[in-house]
Amino acid sequence: MRAADIIRKKRDGSELSREEIAYLIRDYCRNKIPDYQISAFLMAVFFRGLTEAETVALTQEMEFSGAVFDLSSIAGRKVDKHSTGGVGDKTSLIVAPAVAAAGVVVPMICGRGLGHTGGTLDKLESIPGFNVQLSGDNFREMLSTVGAALIGQTEDIVPADRKLYALRDVTSTVESLPLIVASIMSKKLAEGVDGLVLDVKTGSGAFMKTRQDAERLARAMVGIGKACGKKMAALITDMNQPLGKLVGNALEVRECIDVLKGGGPADLVSLCEELSAHCLVLGEAAPGIEEARELYRRSIASGSALEKFRAIIRFQGGNESVVDDDSILPKALYQTPLLSSGAGFVLSMDTEAIGLALCALGAGRENVDSSIDPAAGMYLHKKLGDFVEAGEPLCTLYYNEEKRFREAAPKIEAAYVLAFEPPPKRSELILEIL
Amino acid sequence: MRAADIIRKKRDGSELSREEIAYLIRDYCRNKIPDYQISAFLMAVFFRGLTEAETVALTQEMEFSGAVFDLSSIAGRKVDKHSTGGVGDKTSLIVAPAVAAAGVVVPMICGRGLGHTGGTLDKLESIPGFNVQLSGDNFREMLSTVGAALIGQTEDIVPADRKLYALRDVTSTVESLPLIVASIMSKKLAEGVDGLVLDVKTGSGAFMKTRQDAERLARAMVGIGKACGKKMAALITDMNQPLGKLVGNALEVRECIDVLKGGGPADLVSLCEELSAHCLVLGEAAPGIEEARELYRRSIASGSALEKFRAIIRFQGGNESVVDDDSILPKALYQTPLLSSGAGFVLSMDTEAIGLALCALGAGRENVDSSIDPAAGMYLHKKLGDFVEAGEPLCTLYYNEEKRFREAAPKIEAAYVLAFEPPPKRSELILEIL
Repeated sequence: MRAADIIRKKRDGSELSREEIAYLIRDYCRNKIPDYQISAFLMAVFFRGLTEAETVALTQEMEFSGAVFDLSSIAGRKVDKHSTGGVGDKTSLIVAPAVAAAGVVVPMICGRGLGHTGGTLDKLESIPGFNVQLSGDNFREMLSTVGAALIGQTEDIVPADRKLYALRDVTSTVESLPLIVASIMSKKLAEGVDGLVLDVKTGSGAFMKTRQDAERLARAMVGIGKACGKKMAALITDMNQPLGKLVGNALEVRECIDVLKGGGPADLVSLCEELSAHCLVLGEAAPGIEEARELYRRSIASGSALEKFRAIIRFQGGNESVVDDDSILPKALYQTPLLSSGAGFVLSMDTEAIGLALCALGAGRENVDSSIDPAAGMYLHKKLGDFVEAGEPLCTLYYNEEKRFREAAPKIEAAYVLAFEPPPKRSELILEIL
Repeated sequence: MRAADIIRKKRDGSELSREEIAYLIRDYCRNKIPDYQISAFLMAVFFRGLTEAETVALTQEMEFSGAVFDLSSIAGRKVDKHSTGGVGDKTSLIVAPAVAAAGVVVPMICGRGLGHTGGTLDKLESIPGFNVQLSGDNFREMLSTVGAALIGQTEDIVPADRKLYALRDVTSTVESLPLIVASIMSKKLAEGVDGLVLDVKTGSGAFMKTRQDAERLARAMVGIGKACGKKMAALITDMNQPLGKLVGNALEVRECIDVLKGGGPADLVSLCEELSAHCLVLGEAAPGIEEARELYRRSIASGSALEKFRAIIRFQGGNESVVDDDSILPKALYQTPLLSSGAGFVLSMDTEAIGLALCALGAGRENVDSSIDPAAGMYLHKKLGDFVEAGEPLCTLYYNEEKRFREAAPKIEAAYVLAFEPPPKRSELILEIL
């Protein structure tokens, strides 16, 4: 087999065999095929796409390019939830303990924030002492004893994805549906889960700006997961505004603890209930979605979800007293409300612009080497459809550096669009369930 | 400027600026942009194409990536002829001396054979002592004194093309019209010519199998050449059978000497006359094409073209007595006719297959490192439309190794297709003049 012939075959629109894809990925990981051939292949894939069979082959070759967790010795079903990313999207910190409290194991390998989107690892690390780097053995022990773990990707998992992603990043071949699907799914499959619930975001703060693109991605991931023998569910959910009322790492931990205590904003509560319920159905803890929702609500009402969160923090070395007293979280020196210059209804929010402005404020990463200010963030006084008087606060910004505030504030103000009339109808939070 | 952004822009179908193309090519040649970004760019170009303005920019950036001949100090117009390659395509050895004899300078930088096509340098090197590697100074001196030179590409000319071509070869990005155009034209422009006549071959022995593809290539090259200030002409010519009756390096030199002496096969004579006449028109040696044809015929009839060929051989260190006595050329040990198994009219010839079989016989290069047997080749007793009796020779093969004959002979026999009826109409040799 010659790499140039495989590139030509894909370039000319033919379907590659499992053997051809295996040859490319294996020899690329062994540095026997050079970057310049793989980047030409990736660009050909950008234009020609991959069939489902090709995507399954690519996903599995990537999955088995490194270590794969074997969780078969751990009792119970293992289910994970994966979100495509958004602003204020903090559901993992609630879903993982709630689902584990209801008896389904949650082996969650999480990511960091990049660009306008936040990352679960960054949020967890705002809890003093919280360690996201567990060894494989510790990860398995934690799943056996606690029932859930939220850790970062280990070096030995899916090395093909790291190598391919770095190359895609510098060759403008990131935005390819099958490559996105294979990247996400190979990592999730390597976790050793039985089932996976996908939260595919769409709207101004999502990677998939249109509902159609989000559906295509969701259907592709569900198809690949099922073809690989996993139970799959996917929710298409709205990301035309930040989720919940607080955005920023420590602020989001506070809001999660509120939800685990039975409070919190309605949109966040509702999405956590739906995602958790689907995890519980896939994990066979409930016969149907209604029973699963009830199971979730009981885990909140009984305090068992909160206690599970405490146990997770304890096992991962964090200061578990945060559950009782969130004042131990990093706090910003400054809190400044942004006042509305006019009166009107909030018609739309450029949520990606808000996410990027929050990066400038310190709450996120502008590039992979940026450091994060865990205390920085915002509180949303007004969300879509709300009426605001002139001079009334739209939101409050939390920050430690005035220079950063001066950069971020005008961008966040500009991201709100007000209208004289109330918007015709708020889009539903949960748009579709596949 | 970032290479990834330029790749993305081309990937998404936008037109690149001159500055963006200059940045890519210059920094690639300086090894500041890695192969893996350029190969992704080349694949994006394969799918998106290049506009004429982009192709001009690419061609000129490649042209000026190295040394460019300045021939302004040499009196007279300088015109070259370039063929896209075929089997038995030996016109350069006739056109260059004939045009120079009629007063137009011919600075011809020639190539080697590869795959099924022959190369002018290989043909010339079958003349004992002939040296195709001249220094730039010798090249200029030869143009001043002899009026024509046929040399190989020097190391310092168009280094960008060598680097890009090597990358295209291993990333399956060769077959892109604008990349082919830029590769050919950058080299021709670097020769410092005022005008260029293109012989774009089409048919079973050409790179462009269809007339439509040949026309597209010809039009694109003419457009780019004119945009770069050169006088251009292009002929679309038939390559559904070898040109002339002899194929093989030393055999083709023999046939060229026949033509320069006023003999030779009609198709070769006719094409040389037409190509030379266009060179003479572009070189302003004749007011119109009819006068230019007459000028060519006179240069043959008077013997001045033959004497010019002698002077070329002499200046380039070859044994000029070949002009008077072609028995000094390498001769094959064996000559074996291939006899037709049936009777019929020659309906078609797979000319590429013949070219590849001749490689196997030793006459050409199967890959860039192969050595060549200058004596190997074939004589065509029968060409398209000819009638052959069973047992009559189709062609005679010339070779030095019986093993090679056993490999090549059945392939050449299989390349002839006979029919009971004469083919409806032979296609014209010169299909179109742009």
